[in-house]
Amino acid sequence: MKIVNSIEQLRKLLNRQVRQRQTVGFVPTMGFLHEGHLALVKKAREENEIVVMSIFVNPTQFGPGEDYATYPRNEQRDAALAAEAGVDIVFMPDKDEMYPRVGDIQIFPGKQAEVLCGASRSGHFDGVLKVILKLFNIVDPDRSYFGMKDAQQLAIIETFVEDFNFRTTIERVPTVREKDGLAKSSRNVRLSPKERSEAPVLYEALQLGKKQLEQGKEASVVEHEVAQLIENKTSGAIDYVALLAYPSLQPLTADSEEAILACAVNFEKARLIDNVIVKLKDELPCSE
Amino acid sequence: MKIVNSIEQLRKLLNRQVRQRQTVGFVPTMGFLHEGHLALVKKAREENEIVVMSIFVNPTQFGPGEDYATYPRNEQRDAALAAEAGVDIVFMPDKDEMYPRVGDIQIFPGKQAEVLCGASRSGHFDGVLKVILKLFNIVDPDRSYFGMKDAQQLAIIETFVEDFNFRTTIERVPTVREKDGLAKSSRNVRLSPKERSEAPVLYEALQLGKKQLEQGKEASVVEHEVAQLIENKTSGAIDYVALLAYPSLQPLTADSEEAILACAVNFEKARLIDNVIVKLKDELPCSE
Repeated sequence: MKIVNSIEQLRKLLNRQVRQRQTVGFVPTMGFLHEGHLALVKKAREENEIVVMSIFVNPTQFGPGEDYATYPRNEQRDAALAAEAGVDIVFMPDKDEMYPRVGDIQIFPGKQAEVLCGASRSGHFDGVLKVILKLFNIVDPDRSYFGMKDAQQLAIIETFVEDFNFRTTIERVPTVREKDGLAKSSRNVRLSPKERSEAPVLYEALQLGKKQLEQGKEASVVEHEVAQLIENKTSGAIDYVALLAYPSLQPLTADSEEAILACAVNFEKARLIDNVIVKLKDELPCSE
Repeated sequence: MKIVNSIEQLRKLLNRQVRQRQTVGFVPTMGFLHEGHLALVKKAREENEIVVMSIFVNPTQFGPGEDYATYPRNEQRDAALAAEAGVDIVFMPDKDEMYPRVGDIQIFPGKQAEVLCGASRSGHFDGVLKVILKLFNIVDPDRSYFGMKDAQQLAIIETFVEDFNFRTTIERVPTVREKDGLAKSSRNVRLSPKERSEAPVLYEALQLGKKQLEQGKEASVVEHEVAQLIENKTSGAIDYVALLAYPSLQPLTADSEEAILACAVNFEKARLIDNVIVKLKDELPCSE
């Protein structure tokens, strides 16, 4: 496995003459790898000849007061895990390599970014699109792999790729969970033992909500009951519990086929998010 | 020469297996071709194995009340001129092919778009970046050719390419002029005979201003005198005459090396723009 810090060096490794007919699968990460990331690598490894992972804690997607400075980092461990998982090239640029100057071109994601995490994390998804455009231009992937845990990010990137004709496909990979149901996250290490024991309630509550929705319970009632459960059984402060059409992230309508039931909960030193996807209509059988 | 209307078809013609080691030179236009466009093609032809021209009157870069509906169009003549100039592929999508839905992701170019034409054409350069990102993703050029007549557009696109790591280089091509100095423009056909006879004054005035600047005259005095000359000798209404650092488009400082002296003048049915580049400092000789 090659570890590359410069954009120029990465371009040389991935240029067309080197690449030829081989496809590139791309796994963008902020490092501190866990099994969720490794599931992305596994799928990329199965589907491509070359697997590239980026590890970059992107400052532009953190707001003032957020945890950019304290976001967990461990480059050596990450490199070992990536190598073991079969990554060919790890791209680990520093901040100055990615942002040599403060540019003022901004990419605004629109309505999809106004709800869920976007409502409280102003500018977060602008920063995500900024780094994603740069990474897509640098890596020029055939396929890019994103986890469903960051479902809003994934939906916004899918829209970006579709509306702006990027060559890469976007591959959705299911959330990987601990045995007790807690979604894997780099931020889980910052939970206190007590919080860690409460945290699986998020997924339990979402699953309960999903079941209720499938049984026809009204959306607002379900949102309320999920929130109640999280509030009663954890010490975290709920940012949101919301049910929206997926991937549009707009309010549900009679035509909505899939919904996302999502939550964000602030614990003392970690903000956790989780979600489940709910099928609202059975697929229609094929007709001739 | 191939004429292609669909994105999918163009991608097939330009994919890596077809392209192999050949480079693609890209000339994005809004059609109604004149010798300015053909100068772009000529340079692209000299420097690349494959030359792609797009012809698309991009609705997102026209504001309300601007001339999108009446922008001059002549696809047949354009195709003949492109073929004669040596273009390999002309990409002529319709509006629905480029914008199948009204997306709400926006790209805002920042400070460089707040001056000159950007000051009076709100949203114009947002629309330019939107279509350019789409076209760069679709064509994936090695080199892209832009005329210096649209100097602000060129400067903004250079910043976009640099800050977001696009693979293409941006090639600046000098403005092509009529014998009497008027910059070639698709909009010149909308000048009345009287306006057409006055229009060369724009370039005369800019050249005079350039000479004065090189002789050390103060910037504000030069701007004023250029504007006076245009006002006295044409029936057009001046939108701006401005001197700025190039390509930053910020106010001149003691360190500025190049400046742009630019003007925009509204005639009855055509808005004309023109500019000259002024070297403010001699290049330093190479030292060992």
